[in-house]
Amino acid sequence: MNILIVHAHPEPLSFTTALKDHAVQVLENIGHAVEVSDLYAMNFNPVASQADFDSRSNQEYLNYALEQRHASKTHDLAQDIQIEIEKVQKADLLIFSFPMYWTSVPAILKGWIDRVFVSGIFYGGKRFYNHGGMLGKKAMLSFTLGGRDHMFGQNAIHGAIDDLLLPIQRGTLAYVGFDVLPPFIAYHVPYITDEARQQLLQQYQQHLQNLEQLQALEFPKLEQFDDKLYPL
Amino acid sequence: MNILIVHAHPEPLSFTTALKDHAVQVLENIGHAVEVSDLYAMNFNPVASQADFDSRSNQEYLNYALEQRHASKTHDLAQDIQIEIEKVQKADLLIFSFPMYWTSVPAILKGWIDRVFVSGIFYGGKRFYNHGGMLGKKAMLSFTLGGRDHMFGQNAIHGAIDDLLLPIQRGTLAYVGFDVLPPFIAYHVPYITDEARQQLLQQYQQHLQNLEQLQALEFPKLEQFDDKLYPL
Repeated sequence: MNILIVHAHPEPLSFTTALKDHAVQVLENIGHAVEVSDLYAMNFNPVASQADFDSRSNQEYLNYALEQRHASKTHDLAQDIQIEIEKVQKADLLIFSFPMYWTSVPAILKGWIDRVFVSGIFYGGKRFYNHGGMLGKKAMLSFTLGGRDHMFGQNAIHGAIDDLLLPIQRGTLAYVGFDVLPPFIAYHVPYITDEARQQLLQQYQQHLQNLEQLQALEFPKLEQFDDKLYPL
Repeated sequence: MNILIVHAHPEPLSFTTALKDHAVQVLENIGHAVEVSDLYAMNFNPVASQADFDSRSNQEYLNYALEQRHASKTHDLAQDIQIEIEKVQKADLLIFSFPMYWTSVPAILKGWIDRVFVSGIFYGGKRFYNHGGMLGKKAMLSFTLGGRDHMFGQNAIHGAIDDLLLPIQRGTLAYVGFDVLPPFIAYHVPYITDEARQQLLQQYQQHLQNLEQLQALEFPKLEQFDDKLYPL
């Protein structure tokens, strides 16, 4: 497989970064080709704006999604966006590697999504969920957080982690057609021993070596809804 | 009340911006004092990094939350962060005004949260949820989106909007102690008539004039959990 890891951590010595480096090594050892977009190292601009389009269909009024659709047709997307789109198009598997910030992704990764998942290529009209533009590709989250695992769950203090991941796993990755694989989650990272970190690296390795066997998460299919998207 | 509106839309002529402008007018007419952080107009930097600290407790290794805690004590936070913190501290009500991007906030607003909600002031140790640093203050989302309202709900194609808002309403605003008021949501905005937009402005006005009567959403209280945060 061709694998793209989009990595977002401000500290190159962080454990999140160690997980990313380990993933590259493990995946290459199995025979996959791995590319990394290290957003902090790239100084990636996360702010969606008019500057993302070399030419506009409407100069007077910025409708960001419409301009994405236009510019993706006329090849007028800003070059940093175009480069990332081509990396995703080449990839069979997309991995987001990040520390959880505010039960979500860091802004630099959110902005990578805002700018790179362009209307017209990733989705548009009735091309979403199991008809999305990234159909046939897989995606997976790999992230670290401070809380312990018992703090997440249906009756736990922060609620179920799957529920917190809905916007990214369902509203983003599944929406554009990816098969979303179960995430790899490293809990309590800032507080654990080196030994526990070694165990996490080992667990991540097993997760990655087992990719082909992982069952994708279940999300809606367009066929379960009528023309106006009411449930059938 | 002192009210802070944090607004994030790249187009000054957008309907989202019109809602924000209307809110300022309506709230000032009732007698509230309103301040606006217009993140695009401010060219706000959303990327959490080492540059956010004028001095560091650890020069070798960036633990972002630990440095926030340190710099908030030693008054070494970057000035753009310090200014926003003081606006929040002055406010009785914080409103996030934005177009929904990927069932979440735009990156520029996510980064405002990542950088401004600093450990040590907004939360820390056992100071979270109903013991969070922002206790006694209210917060509210006001956002526009492209989908129709029937596309959101328990059995709807995109799921319940409350579930999609969990990371921001529960994992962020409630976590730091805000009473979270019911959001104002403007559906299908890019596709509706001017008349329908006028109605939305009117509905938003009523929502704002009714602020004191709005019942805050229910979120966990620390007293429902034991010392290790297991449910009692």
